[in-house]
Amino acid sequence: MSDYTAIELGGLDEWGSGGEHPGKRFIDAELGTAHTGISVNSTEPGGESPFWHVHSAIEETHIVLSGRGEIALDDEVVPLGPGTVVRVGPGTWRAVRALPDSGEPMKWLCVRSGADSLAGVGDDAEIDSERPFPWNA
Amino acid sequence: MSDYTAIELGGLDEWGSGGEHPGKRFIDAELGTAHTGISVNSTEPGGESPFWHVHSAIEETHIVLSGRGEIALDDEVVPLGPGTVVRVGPGTWRAVRALPDSGEPMKWLCVRSGADSLAGVGDDAEIDSERPFPWNA
Repeated sequence: MSDYTAIELGGLDEWGSGGEHPGKRFIDAELGTAHTGISVNSTEPGGESPFWHVHSAIEETHIVLSGRGEIALDDEVVPLGPGTVVRVGPGTWRAVRALPDSGEPMKWLCVRSGADSLAGVGDDAEIDSERPFPWNA
Repeated sequence: MSDYTAIELGGLDEWGSGGEHPGKRFIDAELGTAHTGISVNSTEPGGESPFWHVHSAIEETHIVLSGRGEIALDDEVVPLGPGTVVRVGPGTWRAVRALPDSGEPMKWLCVRSGADSLAGVGDDAEIDSERPFPWNA
């Protein structure tokens, strides 16, 4: 018996919002992954993460496909555009936004791995809802 | 010290060939990932994997962004198009092609994880250069 799962997201221009986390779709459960966390994201111009977060163990890789934005990494801000890929290691706080003048939503993927199992991927996160984003400071 | 790495791939239409594996760029080393394997792929219409391969431990997730193709999963063939995401578990043999009439190169990402470390990601692969692909049979 072959072990695979296939889902259809539609083209980039169809990636949209909805669900519990507007603009963010966690496809791990849909795919039944054992080790790989993946979210598919569409952030409207001027939209931003609801909070900072950090992981104690896993690494996240952000892959931007279209639109323009910024990622805050502790006290640094790195510009994001089509084809920007950012690896973020454990212990570094992060938050993302699409630029208000992006012109189009920022479409991006976030890949999480490094825990022993996918169950561990989410459990090592901590959030900070109080800390201001650098672009709002 | 913030722990991150950022690289620029350029837009999808700039993803191209070159290097040791034409059309396939492993960005793990460029990013310095510890646990996550990622390749960025551009497969010309009619182009295909150089061989079948299988993993004993890790899972692979193929994310298609543009173009049309097929993935062979043991004896099954699943169509690929923009937004198709396929998780392939350990023990399932796989090979990919872009359709000859795709009209444009197939741009896709392959994410690997599940080994204890990235060093283990490649070591669990086996290849079969003799087995014909279903689309050539």
